[in-house]
Amino acid sequence: LQLFVSMSADGSRFDPLVVVELTSDTKEEAISWLLSRIRDTQQNGGAELQVEQLEQLGPGVSAQEKENPNLFLVGATRQRLLSGAEDLGLFKEFHDGSMRGFTCANKHNFKDFQGDGDSFLSMAECQYIIKHELDTLRARDETHVPGHQQVKLYPGKSIIRRLLSKGILIQVFPLHQKEELKRLSFSWYQKVKLSFQPLDDIRHYYGEGQALYFGFLEYFTFALVPMALIGVPYYLFDWEDYDKYVLLAAFNLVWCTVILELWKRCSASLAYRWGTLSRKKAFEEPRPGFHGVLGFNPVTGREEPLYPNTKRQLRVYLVSLPFVLLCLYLSLYIMMIYFLMEGWVLSVHDEEPTFWTGILCFIPSVIYAVVIEVMNLIYRYAAEFLTEWGEYAASSCQHRLFSPQFNFFNCFASLFYIAFVMHDMVMLRQSLATLLITSQILNQFMEAFLPFWLQRRRNKKMIRKVQIRKTLEDKELPLADQVRLEADMSTYLGTFDDYLELFLLFGYVSLFSCVYPLAAVLVVLNNITEVYSDAFKMCRVFKRPFSDPAANIGVWQLAFEAMSVIAVVTNCSLIGMSPQVKAYFPESDMQLILWTVAVEHGLLAFKFILTFLIPDVPKHIQINLSRLEFESLEALKKKVKPGRFNQSRSTLTVNRANSSSNE
Amino acid sequence: LQLFVSMSADGSRFDPLVVVELTSDTKEEAISWLLSRIRDTQQNGGAELQVEQLEQLGPGVSAQEKENPNLFLVGATRQRLLSGAEDLGLFKEFHDGSMRGFTCANKHNFKDFQGDGDSFLSMAECQYIIKHELDTLRARDETHVPGHQQVKLYPGKSIIRRLLSKGILIQVFPLHQKEELKRLSFSWYQKVKLSFQPLDDIRHYYGEGQALYFGFLEYFTFALVPMALIGVPYYLFDWEDYDKYVLLAAFNLVWCTVILELWKRCSASLAYRWGTLSRKKAFEEPRPGFHGVLGFNPVTGREEPLYPNTKRQLRVYLVSLPFVLLCLYLSLYIMMIYFLMEGWVLSVHDEEPTFWTGILCFIPSVIYAVVIEVMNLIYRYAAEFLTEWGEYAASSCQHRLFSPQFNFFNCFASLFYIAFVMHDMVMLRQSLATLLITSQILNQFMEAFLPFWLQRRRNKKMIRKVQIRKTLEDKELPLADQVRLEADMSTYLGTFDDYLELFLLFGYVSLFSCVYPLAAVLVVLNNITEVYSDAFKMCRVFKRPFSDPAANIGVWQLAFEAMSVIAVVTNCSLIGMSPQVKAYFPESDMQLILWTVAVEHGLLAFKFILTFLIPDVPKHIQINLSRLEFESLEALKKKVKPGRFNQSRSTLTVNRANSSSNE
Repeated sequence: LQLFVSMSADGSRFDPLVVVELTSDTKEEAISWLLSRIRDTQQNGGAELQVEQLEQLGPGVSAQEKENPNLFLVGATRQRLLSGAEDLGLFKEFHDGSMRGFTCANKHNFKDFQGDGDSFLSMAECQYIIKHELDTLRARDETHVPGHQQVKLYPGKSIIRRLLSKGILIQVFPLHQKEELKRLSFSWYQKVKLSFQPLDDIRHYYGEGQALYFGFLEYFTFALVPMALIGVPYYLFDWEDYDKYVLLAAFNLVWCTVILELWKRCSASLAYRWGTLSRKKAFEEPRPGFHGVLGFNPVTGREEPLYPNTKRQLRVYLVSLPFVLLCLYLSLYIMMIYFLMEGWVLSVHDEEPTFWTGILCFIPSVIYAVVIEVMNLIYRYAAEFLTEWGEYAASSCQHRLFSPQFNFFNCFASLFYIAFVMHDMVMLRQSLATLLITSQILNQFMEAFLPFWLQRRRNKKMIRKVQIRKTLEDKELPLADQVRLEADMSTYLGTFDDYLELFLLFGYVSLFSCVYPLAAVLVVLNNITEVYSDAFKMCRVFKRPFSDPAANIGVWQLAFEAMSVIAVVTNCSLIGMSPQVKAYFPESDMQLILWTVAVEHGLLAFKFILTFLIPDVPKHIQINLSRLEFESLEALKKKVKPGRFNQSRSTLTVNRANSSSNE
Repeated sequence: LQLFVSMSADGSRFDPLVVVELTSDTKEEAISWLLSRIRDTQQNGGAELQVEQLEQLGPGVSAQEKENPNLFLVGATRQRLLSGAEDLGLFKEFHDGSMRGFTCANKHNFKDFQGDGDSFLSMAECQYIIKHELDTLRARDETHVPGHQQVKLYPGKSIIRRLLSKGILIQVFPLHQKEELKRLSFSWYQKVKLSFQPLDDIRHYYGEGQALYFGFLEYFTFALVPMALIGVPYYLFDWEDYDKYVLLAAFNLVWCTVILELWKRCSASLAYRWGTLSRKKAFEEPRPGFHGVLGFNPVTGREEPLYPNTKRQLRVYLVSLPFVLLCLYLSLYIMMIYFLMEGWVLSVHDEEPTFWTGILCFIPSVIYAVVIEVMNLIYRYAAEFLTEWGEYAASSCQHRLFSPQFNFFNCFASLFYIAFVMHDMVMLRQSLATLLITSQILNQFMEAFLPFWLQRRRNKKMIRKVQIRKTLEDKELPLADQVRLEADMSTYLGTFDDYLELFLLFGYVSLFSCVYPLAAVLVVLNNITEVYSDAFKMCRVFKRPFSDPAANIGVWQLAFEAMSVIAVVTNCSLIGMSPQVKAYFPESDMQLILWTVAVEHGLLAFKFILTFLIPDVPKHIQINLSRLEFESLEALKKKVKPGRFNQSRSTLTVNRANSSSNE
């Protein structure tokens, strides 16, 4: 944390944590107004943070005339950060080992609070606090940004958000810590070793959301190993015997259920340890971006913008649904083109089979796989755009409501068509393998190497300069260069795409596991490299992301479970359709189907009971959570005074909202 | 509450609330020891309640030499009841309209607390508090009950429970309030009217568990009315058209899901209003009956007997499972006998069909229905016995784990056999109708009229005496007669049987709704009389039960939902098997089955999505619950002092457990 300690204008200690970049043509009045609002005390509706212009902290080696001077560094005093942690309701380990909401009054009872609490909050937490304070910096009586008549404001509107949407503010991002990052990346991916990922360190540096993703990636990889091991002999010995496929499929289906249930426990353990399980999302402030009338949050009593719920839902359905339907239609259309190409290539191959036409047979699948990836990308950006336009209140994944469904359809529609309409198992296997392998290669390339290469090219000049300087005098990069280097890095858009990739891989493994047992092997291999490429991309390619205090993998748990239910249906149908199984019921198809349906229902019931029997949260954590709840209720009982609720509501909101509520 | 106010031995005011009856041959030492333990202060490990012998409160008109003198009345001071309510964590309406855990220190902030809080707690709550205090009256250093060497005790053992199990204590029951009961029964079932049941009054008099049952009964009845209305024309016009049956079945399946989901919301509203939704079952003391080593509850920090969890589960599986399997075997065996009888009767009827053989055809079904009811009863008592023997810790319905399953199998096995093995729709309809009607008649008879008649006969003499006395001088019955009259009434065994009956009725309606649409009509009619007979039996036949602060209908919600899932499968199969539907697919059975399966999967998916989309708790209650949680956490933050957890644990347990923990 003390890496870039410098003195601010008024002489107090200043640790830069977050960078705010404004366009170079921002008016002077706007800048000084923004800085004064950031520096102003909370009583006056300010954020009470420290902010300094980058230039004034000493020029970098690469300083040039044409560079943007409007880079500002934001920091805060230790006391301000601690009170911010209290406002955010961060949970920390208490002296008795339980997790408790942090309060300044009680700070010395927290386990890691030593001395004046210098290392109590991790840098990621400090940056999250500053981001939250900046986001909730709201307009008071300003009708527009000084110097920019066209940028309107109204009481309660988030200033940062309005500046961002109008393009005056380019970006807000947290600074890396070179030393920490070096340590982390060494233990994470540079050391060749057979150990688990340093999840606690990842959490410490990137926050809980990232750490949970990497935890899930690791868990998922290990969980697939048994499926991969069982799948290998099927491929090696070319077992086409459906007796064995039935066993494989049955094992896979039960296994999928078990691993998803156990992950919930795993995730609860991690989130409890990190303090996010007890912290309630519902008590958070809403997404600051959003405009609406100010009102009181019915739960916390805090003043914040409210959005009429029905209006929001109407927007979701009126805009998202037609959009998704259009995308689905496009996706179907492209699938049909693929089948036409496939048919044409096969006819060419059948006419005159040579080595080259054999290769040609794979071309349509590969092209189709690429097109699918491109469509996924387009859909993703379109959905992002729609979200911005819709400006939903909650910061949850609501705006990506239809994304997994669309991607599922996009990736698997052709496979379903081949399996259940064309009944062509050979083509299914071939198509599955091509899609899986192509998408894996594409993904690895798109995710890590392409951004890295782009960034290298962009920063080539600066890096060279820096290298010279580095070898010349000091091993440390000056702050100004460091900041400018990071400002040019790509922005990490969150774990959504990473989860989506795993979700689709899970689909390839589970949906048709009895047709292509090797899928699990391929996915395990992919995941092992994925750990490294994801780690590399987090450490080297992207700007540091703000941490996200997630308590679980959210909607993805549901998505994976839905996938495992669909997998039961597809696998049972595939096995029921196989000629070997049909041979058992030579006299009647009806018997065969009835048996298939009965087995399928049995498996579904078994899955359901299993889900019910395995508790979602380990016993000892359940006890700790209940104890917290019990003690809270006891504390409330003890504490209550007449008129207490209204009183606490007003003290909570007086700081940041008193000016805007009188309007 | 002031009905039987009298003066106790030491001259203070005494409201009798609960009756404790010991056998007439109990030793004097045992009685005086028990009374002193009940009267002793909480610091000394007593219950700090008032207790008086019935005889000393004035003789009744029917006083005779041979009557049991060991009837004791238990009461408590108002202050003691309020502190008991705090110990139990009762939730009451706060002055701001939210529900809060009651505390004595803060009592004047509760809405209904007026003056010295005379009518703050309902009599049912007072009786529940006294029962709880009596149940948690634990042995200290006694090794046996004084005067009864054979009745062993050990530190921490519930005294009342040991006395009950050894037969020294005959019963503990709460007293009725004549005036209240008269008012309640008038508004409940004596007035002929078309209005809802007085649920709040029922809750006030009998507690939340009873009120929720009657609320569910009423809701269920109203919810079935649409199904009944749609079913009537099918019966009247003899529509055998399966097109229409498909519509009926589809409506029924969706309707079942919707009503079960909406009930959750209804139940949450009721339970929130009554303060049981916020009160956590987990924070309750365990079932007092249970013997085990004393330890600390990991959640509340209170000292209480702990039971090793694995041992308990082992018991459940090692004992209950073979028992259930045996019962299932018996049930199957009896079903086979029924089919033999049915076959024999049919052959008689076919040989020489007369009016009498036509009647004879119904006899096996009726006999079978009676046998099913008898088997349900036997199973029920056997399960009860096993529970006593097993002595599980929690007071929840765990011990009745397999009961709904067994009853389901017992009632519906024959119908499944007829439908899916014999494929005989005419017999299915006839069998269903006979079973449904017979069981309804039997239940109404067994539930209300038989106990009433038995009790009338038993109390004839006393009632006659009382009638004379009543006409002679005063309209009020003396306390002693009142108590003896109630002591002889039958004991109400809880809502389990009532729910079970509704569960089976729901099965008759939903499982085969497309075969016998009139079932819903019969069930609606049955339920209307059921409301009256249940109300009558609660008010006139049984002893007043102790109230049970339930927050929902518990495991029955799950049972009803499972039934509605099974109903989707059965109805789809029945319709798929019907000749009319088969006629649509003349060329291939396979097409038919595939369509049936597809429709069934669609319906299941639709049910699942519906369950997911309809929130379980209404929005405004969700907000209130979140607010309570938020404010509790805030209170905990504010309050925490060093070493606080250990401190609060010790103050909580010092009262009742300090004596036994030192052993």
